[in-house]
Amino acid sequence: MEIRITDGRIISAEAGESIYEALKNIGIYLVASCGGKGVCGKCRVKIIEGRSRIEATGKLKKKDRDENIVLACQTFPEENILIEIPEDAKLVIGDKIAISKSRGLLEFLRSVEPVFTPPVKCTVLDLDPPTINDNISDLERIKKALDDKGIHGMRFSHDFVSSMSKALRDAKWKVNLAYSDNLEAFALSPAECMNEYGIAVDIGTTTVVLYLINCYDGSLFDVGMTYNSQMRYGDDVITRIVHATEGGGILELRDAVVDDINDMLLPILDKNGINRDDVVSAVISGNTTMSQLFWGLDPSSIREEPYIPTINIFPVWRAGTSKVRINPQAPVYTMPSVGSYVGGDIVAGLLASGMHRKSEIALFMDIGTNGEIVVGNNEWLITAACSMGPCFEGSGIRHGMRATEGAIESVKIDPATFEPAFGVIGNTGPVGICGSGMIDAIAELFFTGIIDQKGKFARDLNTDRIKIGDEGPEFILYRGELKDIVLTQADIENVIRAKAAIYAGVSVLLKEVGLSLDIVERVYIAGGFGNYLDIDKAIMIGMLPDLPKEKFSFIGNTSIAGAYLCLLSQKMRQEAEGISRKMTYMELSVLRGFMDEYMSALFLPHTNIDLFPTVKEAYNKRI
Amino acid sequence: MEIRITDGRIISAEAGESIYEALKNIGIYLVASCGGKGVCGKCRVKIIEGRSRIEATGKLKKKDRDENIVLACQTFPEENILIEIPEDAKLVIGDKIAISKSRGLLEFLRSVEPVFTPPVKCTVLDLDPPTINDNISDLERIKKALDDKGIHGMRFSHDFVSSMSKALRDAKWKVNLAYSDNLEAFALSPAECMNEYGIAVDIGTTTVVLYLINCYDGSLFDVGMTYNSQMRYGDDVITRIVHATEGGGILELRDAVVDDINDMLLPILDKNGINRDDVVSAVISGNTTMSQLFWGLDPSSIREEPYIPTINIFPVWRAGTSKVRINPQAPVYTMPSVGSYVGGDIVAGLLASGMHRKSEIALFMDIGTNGEIVVGNNEWLITAACSMGPCFEGSGIRHGMRATEGAIESVKIDPATFEPAFGVIGNTGPVGICGSGMIDAIAELFFTGIIDQKGKFARDLNTDRIKIGDEGPEFILYRGELKDIVLTQADIENVIRAKAAIYAGVSVLLKEVGLSLDIVERVYIAGGFGNYLDIDKAIMIGMLPDLPKEKFSFIGNTSIAGAYLCLLSQKMRQEAEGISRKMTYMELSVLRGFMDEYMSALFLPHTNIDLFPTVKEAYNKRI
Repeated sequence: MEIRITDGRIISAEAGESIYEALKNIGIYLVASCGGKGVCGKCRVKIIEGRSRIEATGKLKKKDRDENIVLACQTFPEENILIEIPEDAKLVIGDKIAISKSRGLLEFLRSVEPVFTPPVKCTVLDLDPPTINDNISDLERIKKALDDKGIHGMRFSHDFVSSMSKALRDAKWKVNLAYSDNLEAFALSPAECMNEYGIAVDIGTTTVVLYLINCYDGSLFDVGMTYNSQMRYGDDVITRIVHATEGGGILELRDAVVDDINDMLLPILDKNGINRDDVVSAVISGNTTMSQLFWGLDPSSIREEPYIPTINIFPVWRAGTSKVRINPQAPVYTMPSVGSYVGGDIVAGLLASGMHRKSEIALFMDIGTNGEIVVGNNEWLITAACSMGPCFEGSGIRHGMRATEGAIESVKIDPATFEPAFGVIGNTGPVGICGSGMIDAIAELFFTGIIDQKGKFARDLNTDRIKIGDEGPEFILYRGELKDIVLTQADIENVIRAKAAIYAGVSVLLKEVGLSLDIVERVYIAGGFGNYLDIDKAIMIGMLPDLPKEKFSFIGNTSIAGAYLCLLSQKMRQEAEGISRKMTYMELSVLRGFMDEYMSALFLPHTNIDLFPTVKEAYNKRI
Repeated sequence: MEIRITDGRIISAEAGESIYEALKNIGIYLVASCGGKGVCGKCRVKIIEGRSRIEATGKLKKKDRDENIVLACQTFPEENILIEIPEDAKLVIGDKIAISKSRGLLEFLRSVEPVFTPPVKCTVLDLDPPTINDNISDLERIKKALDDKGIHGMRFSHDFVSSMSKALRDAKWKVNLAYSDNLEAFALSPAECMNEYGIAVDIGTTTVVLYLINCYDGSLFDVGMTYNSQMRYGDDVITRIVHATEGGGILELRDAVVDDINDMLLPILDKNGINRDDVVSAVISGNTTMSQLFWGLDPSSIREEPYIPTINIFPVWRAGTSKVRINPQAPVYTMPSVGSYVGGDIVAGLLASGMHRKSEIALFMDIGTNGEIVVGNNEWLITAACSMGPCFEGSGIRHGMRATEGAIESVKIDPATFEPAFGVIGNTGPVGICGSGMIDAIAELFFTGIIDQKGKFARDLNTDRIKIGDEGPEFILYRGELKDIVLTQADIENVIRAKAAIYAGVSVLLKEVGLSLDIVERVYIAGGFGNYLDIDKAIMIGMLPDLPKEKFSFIGNTSIAGAYLCLLSQKMRQEAEGISRKMTYMELSVLRGFMDEYMSALFLPHTNIDLFPTVKEAYNKRI
């Protein structure tokens, strides 16, 4: 039998095999925290054609069932079928782009520290077996050996001591002692067999990314990406904090994201044949609210004036406390935050950009569900944040998706025929559109006059690319065999609001420090875009300031990149804390002028087009 | 209705009141870990006369029921009854002797440290509330305040941080931060209301003693004593270690003793109106096996050559880990051990004796289920241990009991009539006989010729004080209305074996360091005796070496005394660790000559009576 997917892929399924299993066999992983037992209700797919046997519907609502949504793990094709996989049911595992990008980081890291120093360190202890004349206790024997190595002040937990004596004897007194940066012993293993894997996790408001890393050679084993299930409680941090203040809300939010991490981790470990107990360190990177929720800490004071987080520089706690299913004793390092709306993801971003090490004044912009801006250099850093919504991460956009295989990432529209051409990540058929594709598309729609300065569709154009959909006019980017890919009026308005917020943030922050744009020697653009962002187009829609193109560096998901650096290097962890302490954090909401700047930026590119001289020139030329 | 007890006490009971409640109302506490719900099966009493309604028999065996044993909490008198309370069902609470003894310790402590420093320290933090311009995180605000006070390097657990932000706001930013010696923050409370209670616990192989202490003024609030329920798994440490090696044995042993502690703690806290969460520190003192079992650590290597404990100097762990029901975050300090058979109780004893501070050479003997001996001074200390059995703690002796109210503690026998006279603790009617009473009685029995050098009863004496009981001849110390108090042939043999073991230990240890007895300037006798031990009698039976009486100091239960000192003073905790590190530990079992010495000492006072010149002289005079 065949299962066809609306993205064009066709896979074969054995009789008696569930859709979940058939997809998994060719490397399409669905979210399923229960591991395919029909319990969690997450592996939802829509049956468009064909007959299947449905064994159970679990937590599916009647509305879902009426729309032919089924649980893939409980549904068994009885003939050829056609299915659609909702974006939020997909796990992305083994992303090639991420793996190729990690190589640059690795080279940088090797230049900083020749030997990697993950949050778990190891030291081999070759102990003399006790005798009747050398009868000190097992723990004192370990302490003495550590003293001899110049390692003083180690702490030993009850868990450690409980298994210590047997481990020493099993290993015949030659052991590998694993301990954390802050000198907490956490495991003993026979000296010859210490497998050391670590994970770096970027908890975005919209997406969660996980790297599985070999801490010996720094290589990126595998990558997972999924949507943050906290989205069911709200699109942005504010609505989630509101949910957290309701009874049990904090734990719901924590469990949601920890489940997401475990959902990714399980198939990745499975696929690579790695035991969870061999994953012995973790770094978590996220904005302040995400980091606090990950640890189950009440985020409510983040939302209330004077906007105070519980914690900026996190102690190293254990994986068991977080419920992430790696070795429960593994130390978990949390990227330090700066303030309520500038979190560890931004500190990670700065670390990956390296701007905190250089004397040139740079502007750092992280474009995600939250937009964060940093200005400064190796001497000073100032930062602020604004809310953008999840559009650039593919959420809240009709055919939006993350910058993974099948995403339209660049668009060109013929000004005469209005026919679009586009580039797709992975050079496959298009499945949806990612952030950079949206920016391109809107710039082109604007430039070709299909939409006006306010982003509204022109009514009098002679093209069948514009049609009236359920929610107003929309532009057909791609006519698919099974479905079209469109950009709707609402999609465009979402993007314009997002770009206005970040542009206003940049303007206000520069004003606050009394700098003009031309002082800025470099602009780092971070965010979940693919490997392509057309700077000209981003300037054209007024998202980026109108600076010479060569000043811009597109640096991708720096939250995960910084987490990766910190997983492998104690020096990087120290620099991260230095960045956190050094950065001055401004509350945009209390800075006068932010709302004015935002309103002015709700146009393409801006109400004051003189701020965008190159756009003005190009636009005038066009006319 | 009346309930008469075989010890002579008579109490009144309301209709519908259980025996358990009636006893509790006049301050007789029975062991009942379930709190009187008929579940734990511990509050056993024997009904000798009278009719009662028995609601349930819970875990009682048929054999028990046949002997009219009932659960006191499930049994309701319907007329006047007579009951017997087995020794191991009694909790002793509010012991007056212990409370009076604590005063001397308190005076000593005040001379060492004017302000008490329990394992939990407190510091008041008067924080500035955050503002939009002073928007550091809550944790960084606390760290800053600590830095200002010169307290650096505090560690913050996830538990602490989880409740921190609310606690700060509830207390309006003026808080009392509680933290441990090793700088782990453990609780915040409003600055004005920090109740600070602590417990010191002596875990003996046979008995468990608990002090509830006010850590502000050092006063002893209350005392509890009970038998160690681990006894059901064996009388001495060796049989318990054997039990621990059987499946689940470690946890059974741990639970048994932790239940004993909680059983005492509950009524004591209840009686004194103290909330368990206000008990914020604990010190545990016990021999090495007891300490390891308290923490659930496998003791098996203690028993196997080369006899290695898992741990001597214990980290400070939390009460929650131990399951002792005080504040779960409370730090628990464990008295450091020296070796497999010389534990924290001996370090506590040395601390209480003060011999480690003086230049005179002293001999320290702790007489309990295990006998430990220390020789040395402020420069050197050497120690060894031997097994004595639980007889001096009242166990394994027909009418044995602890040195509490009602115990016969001194005995005098008329050499002509063989009629005994005795002193009873608390000057009440006699209920049983404690360790010092046994020593007295055996010395008198020997001196009056009722028993011979081997401890065997003479067959030809004209007295009705000797009768033949179920287990051979026995001496009637007291003819009670309800029951007699006797000393049996087996009781006497038990005591002789115990005294032989400790005497042999002293001889071998002194030989090992090449010292003769006359170098010893002081002998400290520690153990669970009452406030009376007749040195002459102890020498007469050959338990103590024949030295001038003025060299002996009887210092009581020094294990609990040392624990009390360490609960109140960081300096004492440091000294305890110093003692543990300094002491040289000898294995008696590998010292040649121990068994010979032991065999020679199985006589009264010794096969070589020339070692006891004063006894020889007195005995000869008598003849």
